[in-house]
Amino acid sequence: MIDNFNLNKDKFRYTLKMSDGEKAVVKVKGVSFGDGNVKFIAGPCAVESREKIFKLAELVKNAGADMLRGGAFKPRTSPYDFQGIGEKGLEYLAEAGKTFGLPTVSEITDKGMLPEFTDIDILQIGAKNMQNFELLKAVGRTDKPVLLKRGFSNTIEELLLSAEYILSEGNQNVILCERGIRTFEKATRNTFDVSAICLLKQISRLPVIADPSHATGKRQLVLPVSLAAAAVGVDGIMTEVHDDPARALCDGEQAITPSEFKELTIKAKEIAKAIR
Amino acid sequence: MIDNFNLNKDKFRYTLKMSDGEKAVVKVKGVSFGDGNVKFIAGPCAVESREKIFKLAELVKNAGADMLRGGAFKPRTSPYDFQGIGEKGLEYLAEAGKTFGLPTVSEITDKGMLPEFTDIDILQIGAKNMQNFELLKAVGRTDKPVLLKRGFSNTIEELLLSAEYILSEGNQNVILCERGIRTFEKATRNTFDVSAICLLKQISRLPVIADPSHATGKRQLVLPVSLAAAAVGVDGIMTEVHDDPARALCDGEQAITPSEFKELTIKAKEIAKAIR
Amino acid sequence: MIDNFNLNKDKFRYTLKMSDGEKAVVKVKGVSFGDGNVKFIAGPCAVESREKIFKLAELVKNAGADMLRGGAFKPRTSPYDFQGIGEKGLEYLAEAGKTFGLPTVSEITDKGMLPEFTDIDILQIGAKNMQNFELLKAVGRTDKPVLLKRGFSNTIEELLLSAEYILSEGNQNVILCERGIRTFEKATRNTFDVSAICLLKQISRLPVIADPSHATGKRQLVLPVSLAAAAVGVDGIMTEVHDDPARALCDGEQAITPSEFKELTIKAKEIAKAIR
Amino acid sequence: MIDNFNLNKDKFRYTLKMSDGEKAVVKVKGVSFGDGNVKFIAGPCAVESREKIFKLAELVKNAGADMLRGGAFKPRTSPYDFQGIGEKGLEYLAEAGKTFGLPTVSEITDKGMLPEFTDIDILQIGAKNMQNFELLKAVGRTDKPVLLKRGFSNTIEELLLSAEYILSEGNQNVILCERGIRTFEKATRNTFDVSAICLLKQISRLPVIADPSHATGKRQLVLPVSLAAAAVGVDGIMTEVHDDPARALCDGEQAITPSEFKELTIKAKEIAKAIR
Repeated sequence: MIDNFNLNKDKFRYTLKMSDGEKAVVKVKGVSFGDGNVKFIAGPCAVESREKIFKLAELVKNAGADMLRGGAFKPRTSPYDFQGIGEKGLEYLAEAGKTFGLPTVSEITDKGMLPEFTDIDILQIGAKNMQNFELLKAVGRTDKPVLLKRGFSNTIEELLLSAEYILSEGNQNVILCERGIRTFEKATRNTFDVSAICLLKQISRLPVIADPSHATGKRQLVLPVSLAAAAVGVDGIMTEVHDDPARALCDGEQAITPSEFKELTIKAKEIAKAIR
Repeated sequence: MIDNFNLNKDKFRYTLKMSDGEKAVVKVKGVSFGDGNVKFIAGPCAVESREKIFKLAELVKNAGADMLRGGAFKPRTSPYDFQGIGEKGLEYLAEAGKTFGLPTVSEITDKGMLPEFTDIDILQIGAKNMQNFELLKAVGRTDKPVLLKRGFSNTIEELLLSAEYILSEGNQNVILCERGIRTFEKATRNTFDVSAICLLKQISRLPVIADPSHATGKRQLVLPVSLAAAAVGVDGIMTEVHDDPARALCDGEQAITPSEFKELTIKAKEIAKAIR
Repeated sequence: MIDNFNLNKDKFRYTLKMSDGEKAVVKVKGVSFGDGNVKFIAGPCAVESREKIFKLAELVKNAGADMLRGGAFKPRTSPYDFQGIGEKGLEYLAEAGKTFGLPTVSEITDKGMLPEFTDIDILQIGAKNMQNFELLKAVGRTDKPVLLKRGFSNTIEELLLSAEYILSEGNQNVILCERGIRTFEKATRNTFDVSAICLLKQISRLPVIADPSHATGKRQLVLPVSLAAAAVGVDGIMTEVHDDPARALCDGEQAITPSEFKELTIKAKEIAKAIR
Repeated sequence: MIDNFNLNKDKFRYTLKMSDGEKAVVKVKGVSFGDGNVKFIAGPCAVESREKIFKLAELVKNAGADMLRGGAFKPRTSPYDFQGIGEKGLEYLAEAGKTFGLPTVSEITDKGMLPEFTDIDILQIGAKNMQNFELLKAVGRTDKPVLLKRGFSNTIEELLLSAEYILSEGNQNVILCERGIRTFEKATRNTFDVSAICLLKQISRLPVIADPSHATGKRQLVLPVSLAAAAVGVDGIMTEVHDDPARALCDGEQAITPSEFKELTIKAKEIAKAIR
């Protein structure tokens, strides 16, 4: 079907579709990515406190979330910006997830941190670490599902090659994530590359999700961009949700409220149904 | 609603939403852009012959097209590539459109050509001419609807400013078109900027359409990218359709067949219904 | 020599180096571009008045300029910005040039303007019109030297193909100009692509000049970037010079003063001597 | 002097020029970066064997090198490409450097590798790890000089912020390196951003070097681009040199020969003298 996107089969051993067309399903506790339905991952940019993450977990659960997200180690561009609350953040996130029946995902930024992520369900590799190959190899030697974000200036081919680093070490549970690329356009934080999702869905066997929050950097674009992703059959949507975006400790300008998130889940499911 | 996209009101006098939120509707014979429904413009990259454009007009009409497209003057990167059949092409296109009840659109590349476009219903300003201000001013002094494509490296703000050139001359019938931007990613011909459509729909009063053919440059991506556009409420979709893409005189690799186009119109309408 | 930059010889018939390695020299009155020395083109962004252009012509002449530049028709992004003083501007520029013995260059933005440029020595095609093929063909049918600027998002290959449009019409007097490309970096107005000059000097027979003013958009970078261009053997440097940059009617933030320009010419010649 | 490049002083505490204009000099054994002279770092992309690195060390020493480079841990885009010979490579590099009186630099890709770099004189942080903040903090806690390469899609501001991560941990010995950015232009591997060097030299107190090999990816552009860097006062030039580029285990197409390197050092010093 893909007649003009030629990939070197020697370099893509695990990430392309099989000859039988079968696709990978990545299961995280009860949640399956790649089963044909769109899943929702929601939560704050950063875990701010135990109380806060519990409150948000409850809110996003009630609004339709399948999983809970929250950063504990934040790879901020400036060393003087809020860096996350660290190990405590992982602990609170895991607790909140268990309490409300939501599997959890959080970003890991160094292979030495692996032991601290024992109770987290998905290891997120962020855009800035997409080519941190030592980290990729290390998570590839675990059996924990990995959410691999596309670097903001990495090609689709490079994203697949980074996934190969993980899969070739043995870990087959990789979910890809489009989160916007860096271009000349500055009206949005990044440029959401919806074609990348289409292409990845056509050539790769791995599930693909979208992160409209980082892609756009603008609250009012999160809903429509999520619907665009749903229209191309994305396997999941990850959004930053905060009950008081103006006071969020990071990235408040791109966080939506729980009620906006609820609307998003309902409409995205409508779209997903329409394309089936 | 747009709390963080600040535009200088002195520079945007005609293109932004009015305080009452009213939006412009551009009417082309019986076809209205901006009325809340998605319209379909289809046809070959270039008018190749009288016979061919008649055949394609019939095929796209039957497949759900609202308008007929076809290039007569092709602004090709190389002077040694096929440049279109010129004035004859416009004549054949207009005839075919009338025969099958389809208003027509074709690209104009110099203001001196205006008299030749008398029988064409929409003047298309292509990506390479988005900042050909002499052309913009000239079409602004006519009353013919203008389809203004975003330059492949122009910002959303620059697109609106180019529209201002047309509207400030008196012509209020402008339709904007997102057709992909030039980025580092080479798996697609350009990067389709779906967020630009979302943003334009939120801030501008002008109708916005999408051109997934030029945006992706790949046949198999035209359908899903069109659905993404439909999911964000695009006012129209313009696609290159050819009954024999392999033998098309230009851009065959991005043309879809009439039956693929029919599927596209059906699914896009489903999506449009789902988001209403 | 260029072992890995493969160009299709069918598409590059006039712009590549000949087998004997001979290069084109473009002569404009007494000034030769491509003779192995670096030439200097200076003047304001826009001709503001007769008095002003005479004053600046004298200042740049005394500071080492070989040619005088000045815009009369300014292709501004916004229709509400200063658009130049038009035909009068060309007249004043030509007069000032003759008075001080400086050949002149000014930007043409539509082929219909050709008659007005009779007394101007070089026709400049600006970045926004690099792919205005009707204009390229029209200037190709004259025998006036053409200064063809690289579009801010056009590749080196596309620049050469646009030059082919001019040369294939008969006009062999084309000078190429690197003026910065649009990238994600916003600390400079554009990103000056010095490698493009190196590559063009190696593969093309046409003279290549640099425009550090538009490339950087910052006064304090004009001198060092000019020296970088001189170090790679550029055939000319075109800079915006104004005696009172803060009050310039356009682009004042990138204009240097006559004394800064004098320093530039002296140092650039030193560099040019060092690489010989 | 920099009147229009406004940086937030709260975020740039260590990397900007002091009020007295004093600049940092980074000393590595007998070699000083930032002392007003251009230094040369040369060697292969990867240490291939003990014999090979000894041979190349001797060749580059005789051709004018001040330091020896060579990768032992190669962060390759594909897991199936040659990954370097690891710890043995560091050992051979250090030995070769000592034998020929050349301090050494090699890339570190994970903080856990620090003990293995004891005998290497400069720790290189590669483009892909410019925002690997755990690594930055770790090298910041050592007293070894750090060569920090700009990420291929990172802004000048982000480069300085990454340097702040290192300096704020205590290590003041940081050298910045421009190595080309990722743009739409594909005739060169990356686009060498010479303006970034100019700007960094004007605003920052840290030495700045250039890597024309990775910036261009083309052997025949390494010399002229090096001269451009010398013309703007760069503090050092790092090039890939191989005696048999066609058989190099990595990046052979951008390696120059020892005799080309010798010519480069001679001409670059000429240029440096001319601008003083």
